[in-house]
Amino acid sequence: MLPEASVDSSGCRFCPLVVVELASDTAEETVAWLLSRIRDKQQNGGAELLVEQMGPGVDSEEKENPNVFLVGASWQRLLAGAEETGFFKEYNDGSMRGFTLANKNNFKDFKGDGDDFLSMAECQSIIKHELDTLRAKDETHVPGHTSAKLYPGKSIVRRLQSKGILFQIFPLHEKEELKRLSFSWYNKMKLSLQPLDDIRHYFGEGQALYFGFLEYFTFALMPMALVGVPYYLFDWEDYDKYVIFAAFNLVWCTVILELWKRCSATLAYQWGTLSRKKAFEEPRPGFHGVLGFNPVTGREEPLYPNVKRQLRVYLVSLPFVLLCLYLSLYVMMIYFLMEGWALKIHDEEPTFWTEILLYIPSIIYAVVIEIMNIIYRYAAEYLTEWENHRLESSYQNHLVLKVLVFNFFNCFASLFYIAFVMQDMVLLRQSLATLLITSQILNQFMEAFLPYWLQRRRNKKMMRKVQKRKTLEDKELPVVDQVRLEADMSTYLGTFDDYLELFLLFGYVSLFSCVYPLAAVLVVLNNITEVYSDAFKMCRVFKRPFSEPAANIGVWQLAFEAMSVIAVVTNCALIGMSPQVKTYFQGSEEQLIFWTVAIEHVLLAVKFILTFLIPDVPKHIQIKLARLEFESLEALKKKKMLEASELSKTEQ
Amino acid sequence: MLPEASVDSSGCRFCPLVVVELASDTAEETVAWLLSRIRDKQQNGGAELLVEQMGPGVDSEEKENPNVFLVGASWQRLLAGAEETGFFKEYNDGSMRGFTLANKNNFKDFKGDGDDFLSMAECQSIIKHELDTLRAKDETHVPGHTSAKLYPGKSIVRRLQSKGILFQIFPLHEKEELKRLSFSWYNKMKLSLQPLDDIRHYFGEGQALYFGFLEYFTFALMPMALVGVPYYLFDWEDYDKYVIFAAFNLVWCTVILELWKRCSATLAYQWGTLSRKKAFEEPRPGFHGVLGFNPVTGREEPLYPNVKRQLRVYLVSLPFVLLCLYLSLYVMMIYFLMEGWALKIHDEEPTFWTEILLYIPSIIYAVVIEIMNIIYRYAAEYLTEWENHRLESSYQNHLVLKVLVFNFFNCFASLFYIAFVMQDMVLLRQSLATLLITSQILNQFMEAFLPYWLQRRRNKKMMRKVQKRKTLEDKELPVVDQVRLEADMSTYLGTFDDYLELFLLFGYVSLFSCVYPLAAVLVVLNNITEVYSDAFKMCRVFKRPFSEPAANIGVWQLAFEAMSVIAVVTNCALIGMSPQVKTYFQGSEEQLIFWTVAIEHVLLAVKFILTFLIPDVPKHIQIKLARLEFESLEALKKKKMLEASELSKTEQ
Repeated sequence: MLPEASVDSSGCRFCPLVVVELASDTAEETVAWLLSRIRDKQQNGGAELLVEQMGPGVDSEEKENPNVFLVGASWQRLLAGAEETGFFKEYNDGSMRGFTLANKNNFKDFKGDGDDFLSMAECQSIIKHELDTLRAKDETHVPGHTSAKLYPGKSIVRRLQSKGILFQIFPLHEKEELKRLSFSWYNKMKLSLQPLDDIRHYFGEGQALYFGFLEYFTFALMPMALVGVPYYLFDWEDYDKYVIFAAFNLVWCTVILELWKRCSATLAYQWGTLSRKKAFEEPRPGFHGVLGFNPVTGREEPLYPNVKRQLRVYLVSLPFVLLCLYLSLYVMMIYFLMEGWALKIHDEEPTFWTEILLYIPSIIYAVVIEIMNIIYRYAAEYLTEWENHRLESSYQNHLVLKVLVFNFFNCFASLFYIAFVMQDMVLLRQSLATLLITSQILNQFMEAFLPYWLQRRRNKKMMRKVQKRKTLEDKELPVVDQVRLEADMSTYLGTFDDYLELFLLFGYVSLFSCVYPLAAVLVVLNNITEVYSDAFKMCRVFKRPFSEPAANIGVWQLAFEAMSVIAVVTNCALIGMSPQVKTYFQGSEEQLIFWTVAIEHVLLAVKFILTFLIPDVPKHIQIKLARLEFESLEALKKKKMLEASELSKTEQ
Repeated sequence: MLPEASVDSSGCRFCPLVVVELASDTAEETVAWLLSRIRDKQQNGGAELLVEQMGPGVDSEEKENPNVFLVGASWQRLLAGAEETGFFKEYNDGSMRGFTLANKNNFKDFKGDGDDFLSMAECQSIIKHELDTLRAKDETHVPGHTSAKLYPGKSIVRRLQSKGILFQIFPLHEKEELKRLSFSWYNKMKLSLQPLDDIRHYFGEGQALYFGFLEYFTFALMPMALVGVPYYLFDWEDYDKYVIFAAFNLVWCTVILELWKRCSATLAYQWGTLSRKKAFEEPRPGFHGVLGFNPVTGREEPLYPNVKRQLRVYLVSLPFVLLCLYLSLYVMMIYFLMEGWALKIHDEEPTFWTEILLYIPSIIYAVVIEIMNIIYRYAAEYLTEWENHRLESSYQNHLVLKVLVFNFFNCFASLFYIAFVMQDMVLLRQSLATLLITSQILNQFMEAFLPYWLQRRRNKKMMRKVQKRKTLEDKELPVVDQVRLEADMSTYLGTFDDYLELFLLFGYVSLFSCVYPLAAVLVVLNNITEVYSDAFKMCRVFKRPFSEPAANIGVWQLAFEAMSVIAVVTNCALIGMSPQVKTYFQGSEEQLIFWTVAIEHVLLAVKFILTFLIPDVPKHIQIKLARLEFESLEALKKKKMLEASELSKTEQ
């Protein structure tokens, strides 16, 4: 299951797993030092990994970076690394337990060394972990680069990264398995569930959970889509029925979000990430500050006062975000001016061209929104970087929050304006459809087709070069060229954008479902193509990402839940404002608003009670987790009893 | 610090710590068996505790229960028990760590055996724990009581309790320390903070947290009280200012509840309960079912299908609660009829007597509410018992929920009715004052004076008997009589009622603060007397309770937060309904309601964001906890590295 193995000088079988690319102008002294530190024994503070410099490729006439290294490890080392990293594996009795070398033979699929016990993705993430935790000893700077300061305990790889000496680290693809995976995932013709276990096996838990969520979300929306179709087709303007539809949607949104937690807990348990403990988090590569002692670890590390960071967040980032929101509102008002202007022209002299003109403001606005989102995204990344967060997780949270708020505002502000200020339901429906469809088309184009097209061009160029040189017996590329090819592929930047897209789609469905019941149908259709395009881009367009252990979808769960709360408010207001409902409360506006608000509060209360009543982890997994905890407590107790009785013996 | 020690047959110093009282008709066989099991070595599955039968008291002419036993333990045993129970103690470096016998000398106050390292309350709870975990071996029933079935692993004490053979277990008071504590707590004249550490030392963390919360709550209400006084005195009917007052109250409620979490975390950290791990929970004594195997422990124990319990909860308990709520509403309507009838009589012929008559319905209603609460409480306990919960915690949660909902309804329904249906603010203010003052007087009477009076009568009787027999040199009672006296004291039933009272007071303050600004003042006054009466009843009226480890105030935090959410809704509605605000929006009812609802939503959003922004655990404690976790991870890693290198050596 590993790519072709070569035998290195030490006589150990060497399978390249991870590629480390240094800048081409790296001093030789630095390279030699880094390699020796990577190869050094663990007792001496090394990583004890195997590493080889890669030879020149087929098109060596072109200028190539010579500092590309392949990293691998012995099986013994990988197993030790699995224990350090804290992998959970299936035990003989079917439960999931933390892997330990001491009782490795009690794990289910363990059959000796060098077997299928660890997947290639796991081996790669072990190597990543070992490289990341390779620490400086008494070096004060990187040899050959006096500006790259080091201090005892500093992660070497992170310093090299932050100084631009280390260009990239990425795991290699595995041709055979990738072919099998992509066939079962998106190449075969018949519709089926995604091979989540295989995806997790190849890409890791973070990715697999995203695709799991995408699939779950699609299925969960189907009832809403099915109910929505007749509403749309037969133009049921009867708001009695709309009220039922909206109420159903609201309860349904809450229920599916709650049930997803259970699903994700089940998946995470099977994959061994549910009870996996988080290791202590290192500072992120970009973090800087005055050298001091970390109060938790006692190690030397840069410190940056929390107060300063808070000041940056509240005095710079927050006003900037508010300014951007204001700008977005301004653009929206221009859109409405254009819309009114186009309508006036069309009304004065209706021709075929003015008919087309009517659609132009919406399309321009949709495109402008996308562009603003992209620009804002860069600004948000820059600002969050500048806020200088110590932890990657805190950086991510601040970034997600910034981007989420702006995207929400940008995408939905015009709809809120139409719905609640203009109170024009026909226009709302029309805008919703335009926005939804335009953004879907744009997204699919930007996400999959564009990178695919670029990648194909690159692939062809490479293949042409290879064929120019020698006639290949088989069509497989040699490892060296494979590595060069993958090194040039775009880097996958994580699931952020994919989740963000789902989040906005969820917004379209939940916020305005009661005026445009077809939204769910469109989103379901989009999700189905999304599965294919996302799968395709993971397998063909991007570098293989390192597998990220994940127990849930993290902050996104919260974001989706917040959206479903806002949805309750919006839907109740929309229903309250509908003329059909108004006729029920003829004249008595007060009564109408009172009842709308009362129902809204009841729905919100029901939501919270439902959230509380549905347990986040299914019973059978709760029991398994409790059993593990109980066993470890009992083992501890037994051990202590033994110690105590020994102690009392020696004291007597 | 321990009561007078006697030397028992084995030559070991014996301090009676806990009293075990069996039913007077217990078979001798049972007594002998129980004592031998308690005295047996731990290796043989015994509790290894010291136990002595108590001799007859001074008034042995009267019929006395001979089966009263005093339990104690050697210091060695208590220290081992402290480790088993999982006590956290202050370490040499100032952090709190789980106590282990192996490095006992590294703990701060440890100075050899028999010192002040463990407080008497801790020793008592260790003995309680050891007695509770004394398990049946191969006995199929309690010897001498064939109906009391046992199975391997069943807690003996719990079975004896559930069969009524074991009458009670309680820890002994410690005269000297109690005198000191009660002096610094409530006897000395000058006002000061409560001695929380001493309370914790004597009564345990659960009690200390309650008193800490009571004190915190009193201080937190002071700003509201201070702001409220001028509002009341100068009759500021200007609703501009009321709006500010109400908004201040709402934000303040949220902030104090959030800050309390931080306070409680700080206290719990100092007391070593914050990171203490919960042991696996045993079934509660009353739990029954068909014998089977617990899926978590694999031990034999009664099982009761969850579905059956859910059916009982949703098909019996829930309808019963709803029926009671309906009944409570019915009583409320009768009250309003009486009120109207009294008003009519007074209006027809106003005399002094009709003036008094005006107050009678309110007073009757307040008394009826209290009576209904008490009756309902018994019903709720019966029902929750019948629901047959496996765990004490689950039983408590269901009971709290039932009682809370009914009490909330019972106390506040009439106020809601007056406020929102009758919209009579003058009556609301008057009713609020009547309810608040009546319930406070009733509570203080029922809680402290009545039990104290009963206890005094008992004490006097006992003293008279003692003095009849012999002239005492000192006024101290001999231990035997002390035990008999304490055995007759009422049992303290936990902090439930105390928290419930605070919860309702918090409701009066937060729900209707904007019509009756004096509420906070009344509650502050009540709380100050409450501290004294509660402290008094803990020290003098009740048996000493076993100390309960607690890291926070549990479900009550949630209850208080729920109340503060309801308070936002109520206050906004009250302000929106006020005539002064209505004049601002002359005629445009729609605008008024819209703004009221909008402001309500903004306040709710601010509440949730505040909850999110204020961390639950103060930074410096977070760091300490992280350091402990980091150290244990590092220690584990080192251990594994050692094992791995040893393993690789043996394999070579």
